[in-house]
Amino acid sequence: MASAPPLPTASDVRAAAERLRGRVVRTPTLRLRALERAGGPEIWAKCENLQHVRAFKARGALHAAARLDPAARARGLVTYSSGNHAQAVALAARSFGVPATVAMPVDAPAVKVAGVRALGASIVPAGTTSDERRAAALDIARTTGAALIEPFDDPDIVAGQGTATLELCEDVAAAAGAPPDLLLVPVGGGGLIAGACLVAAELRIPVCSVEPHTCDAMARSLKAGRRLAVAPGPTLADGLRPTRVGALNFAIASTHGVCPLRVDDEAIGRAMVALLLRGNLLVEPSGAAALAAALAAALPLPARRLGVILSGGNVAPALVADLLARYGDEP
Amino acid sequence: MASAPPLPTASDVRAAAERLRGRVVRTPTLRLRALERAGGPEIWAKCENLQHVRAFKARGALHAAARLDPAARARGLVTYSSGNHAQAVALAARSFGVPATVAMPVDAPAVKVAGVRALGASIVPAGTTSDERRAAALDIARTTGAALIEPFDDPDIVAGQGTATLELCEDVAAAAGAPPDLLLVPVGGGGLIAGACLVAAELRIPVCSVEPHTCDAMARSLKAGRRLAVAPGPTLADGLRPTRVGALNFAIASTHGVCPLRVDDEAIGRAMVALLLRGNLLVEPSGAAALAAALAAALPLPARRLGVILSGGNVAPALVADLLARYGDEP
Repeated sequence: MASAPPLPTASDVRAAAERLRGRVVRTPTLRLRALERAGGPEIWAKCENLQHVRAFKARGALHAAARLDPAARARGLVTYSSGNHAQAVALAARSFGVPATVAMPVDAPAVKVAGVRALGASIVPAGTTSDERRAAALDIARTTGAALIEPFDDPDIVAGQGTATLELCEDVAAAAGAPPDLLLVPVGGGGLIAGACLVAAELRIPVCSVEPHTCDAMARSLKAGRRLAVAPGPTLADGLRPTRVGALNFAIASTHGVCPLRVDDEAIGRAMVALLLRGNLLVEPSGAAALAAALAAALPLPARRLGVILSGGNVAPALVADLLARYGDEP
Repeated sequence: MASAPPLPTASDVRAAAERLRGRVVRTPTLRLRALERAGGPEIWAKCENLQHVRAFKARGALHAAARLDPAARARGLVTYSSGNHAQAVALAARSFGVPATVAMPVDAPAVKVAGVRALGASIVPAGTTSDERRAAALDIARTTGAALIEPFDDPDIVAGQGTATLELCEDVAAAAGAPPDLLLVPVGGGGLIAGACLVAAELRIPVCSVEPHTCDAMARSLKAGRRLAVAPGPTLADGLRPTRVGALNFAIASTHGVCPLRVDDEAIGRAMVALLLRGNLLVEPSGAAALAAALAAALPLPARRLGVILSGGNVAPALVADLLARYGDEP
């Protein structure tokens, strides 16, 4: 009987950081003093909204592309995504001077389609579900020889996304004398939190996952002890809507003992506006989810230095205006 | 005949940086790739909107307070301001554990009054003009023994503000291999640009001042070869409205050969919205002025690496919403 390959470790994340040097932005880690409660924990935010393609996804995609054999990479990259990973793979392909094709849903937001196209990738419309998109991408890989860059359930993607947490921990340690003592990480497919867990395991830092109430596949899976699918309900956080987390990512998260948290749209919207008006940073709803959990009245674990990943910043202007109108007058 | 004291130098800025270590945020310097034109210069932004009190003013006020004799400082600080300097002095006083009093105009924006009060300072309403506020502050200094912290025309303030440019030049040199080859700096009273010139003189970097068309005291003074007053006209950039620049600041700027630029409200508003939607950073109108000049079709000097100071981020939510509605749909 074949045993599963060993899980990646923090060493893999450090190796990814070396490979990514000069290819990604070392985004700032900012203390959000204006959002802290008196007597509450410090809030340290890793600003992946300021990353290339305005999302941490650039890390994993560039890392996975860098790991390919150059001859294989020359045949191009292909992926499937409704969101930021599509732009990330388009960027990675351009960065390595190879073509990219992205299978996107026919109902993808215009702003994201335009972003992928502006980076020079070809777009193949492929149904509306993740399964349809993945089938289309696999088909393209078979017929063109292009390398498939998985969106989240892949050790090279996980190691690449982990570099965000590595930098966060380094920066807080440099500024505050010690790394965060609790990490809050948004979860869609789980690549970001899996990478975070690899770093956190070595530093013995607890990690909380943050999901919309309506799309809580990680929380349900952690409770069940096995990977469960959910039917995603409506949420502002369009980046956090996969029907299930990755198998590798679930294995890493459950091994680390991730503590699941859930947030609702109102908390996300308020966190977005508070961050904008008091922290001067614009994030997308998915990017505000972990902060929303940090601003909640009670955290499940004691903490003095919260590490929060602001995962992305691709947001439609109309939504910003709408949330400002709804929550902009609050103190 | 008494000769004027020698102008401060980059050494004074470095000394200020040492004194300010740990007291101010080393704000990030970010390359604004999404706002660059193909074939145009790199745009490197110093994010003082992410500084304490959300403005570079924290640097000068904390530095001037740090330079006071402790016994004198213990009698408290007093200043006059309609804007960010008031909050900066309130912060400095709190940081040193001494009282602060600020003479503010009777028509000061509620958000700024609240900001000063939240930092524990006392507010004395004093007319509507800068002269009335200054007279009130001098009167308080005389009767209470509090130390007057000038808003811009003072060597300790200038050296403190210069630390923003020092960090900008260090950061760009570290990231790009060389410092900026042109600096764009917004001008109100001129403390920020005077500090910038001290750093730029040593590095032989040209400096452009950026002012609203309607309040161009520095541009007119540079052209006349002597300090002129203007009657400030309407502008979105409420931080750039003094009737004249400081005498010391004009001497430093004219010695450096500053090149004056002007921007209008439309350019400022568009730059604010572009920075928000494509750069994910919120600044106040004054904070967008230098970027507006950077985004203009032509610059007066050739440049490959623009250094732009985003000077502050205190902005009313309603104005953000208004500008989003006006310019948010543009590509």
